[in-house]
Amino acid sequence: MSVAGQIGRAAGGSLVQRAMDAVTAHIRDNGLRVGDTLPGEGHFASQLGVSRAVMREAFGALAALRLIDVANGRRARVGAMDGAVMAASLDHAVSTAQVTVPEIWDVRRTIELRTAELAATERTDEEAARIVALAEAMAADRDDFAAMTGHDIAFHEAIALASHNGLFVQIVKSFGPLMEVAVPAAWRTRVAEQRRETMIERHRAVAEAIARQDPINAAMAMSAHFDASIGDLLKSQDAGQPR
Amino acid sequence: MSVAGQIGRAAGGSLVQRAMDAVTAHIRDNGLRVGDTLPGEGHFASQLGVSRAVMREAFGALAALRLIDVANGRRARVGAMDGAVMAASLDHAVSTAQVTVPEIWDVRRTIELRTAELAATERTDEEAARIVALAEAMAADRDDFAAMTGHDIAFHEAIALASHNGLFVQIVKSFGPLMEVAVPAAWRTRVAEQRRETMIERHRAVAEAIARQDPINAAMAMSAHFDASIGDLLKSQDAGQPR
Repeated sequence: MSVAGQIGRAAGGSLVQRAMDAVTAHIRDNGLRVGDTLPGEGHFASQLGVSRAVMREAFGALAALRLIDVANGRRARVGAMDGAVMAASLDHAVSTAQVTVPEIWDVRRTIELRTAELAATERTDEEAARIVALAEAMAADRDDFAAMTGHDIAFHEAIALASHNGLFVQIVKSFGPLMEVAVPAAWRTRVAEQRRETMIERHRAVAEAIARQDPINAAMAMSAHFDASIGDLLKSQDAGQPR
Repeated sequence: MSVAGQIGRAAGGSLVQRAMDAVTAHIRDNGLRVGDTLPGEGHFASQLGVSRAVMREAFGALAALRLIDVANGRRARVGAMDGAVMAASLDHAVSTAQVTVPEIWDVRRTIELRTAELAATERTDEEAARIVALAEAMAADRDDFAAMTGHDIAFHEAIALASHNGLFVQIVKSFGPLMEVAVPAAWRTRVAEQRRETMIERHRAVAEAIARQDPINAAMAMSAHFDASIGDLLKSQDAGQPR
């Protein structure tokens, strides 16, 4: 298949596309796993009868997509799935007005109702303890927006991890960079102390439902959290719009 | 911000990262939109004091991520958000056993319960008619797996479009290439004519609920559809595993 190759077409024409396909086919046909080493550019170049320059371009495109990992001076290796690729797409889509922050928040809400539900049934005791601890850390740092946002992002990622579905983990991670901007903006709009307390309580309610293995209330508490968050964001669209 | 730059670090070091950041900052700071032209590599190279080779690598990485569009011989333009980037990640993650097909199906189910619900309230009359027509086309082509799969993929994308949230559209599109492999595999397992009829009826039920603007039943019918699909896939893990 040529999913990566379809991207190569945009990146630099059909030769680069063929070169990208050859690398992904090599990975697939040899059953390679994350971290396994790949043959060098020269190997593929002579095998395909293309120039080193074409092969270098293909390796660059595959590295940008994180399908391979080409740390400086090292042999190329099979890359690990990484939310950074989707994060770059999201950041670009928002900055060029292709999607709005409320649209992204709807996707987040949809995903995170499910991760909360799954976490309640799938979490280990250690994962439950970490989720509860992060909700408490948010409460403890309620007057430090930067610290609280850090705990907030870690809280949502910890729930995704506890869902034990790696794709949910990467999708939730891809929201992190936008949250770093949008969440402090949302918190700043919660001027009244009482509203901030409500948000902290909502996070605690999610954590406690996951801890007591109650999927229905975990999802409901997450829903209540998002309904409040999106309400604030929609009211402060300028502040909430990243950059 | 340097979300794209974080990827550049993997792609070829800090110079390429800086070069990528300069392009995304240019897009952001000038409020550029999809299709707007960008300065050439030479402009950025001299502005940043980097070589043309570094700038070419940065443009290649940005094109691979679809943040820019560099069709042959044309000036680089701001790229449109494209599910192909996430599709390449998914394809790679499955082929290297980082995620399983049932994990992807859980994400799809989660997303598509919401797109069905949104489509029921947001769809135009034209969109409703297209969704109904695609469900009928599936029924008409029930004995032609390839044609039916084409209608099936188009059906799910039409529902995402009718949700009127562009991010959902791209996420659903990113599932398309995997569906091309997994859906015919799932259909082949539905050997009994009756089961195939059930699947066709489930698609019709989703379409009809959307047509009559009934979000609760649209989501419930979509859920019933996925519960049957995933059941088949889990029973036929080998057949369902793309390639």
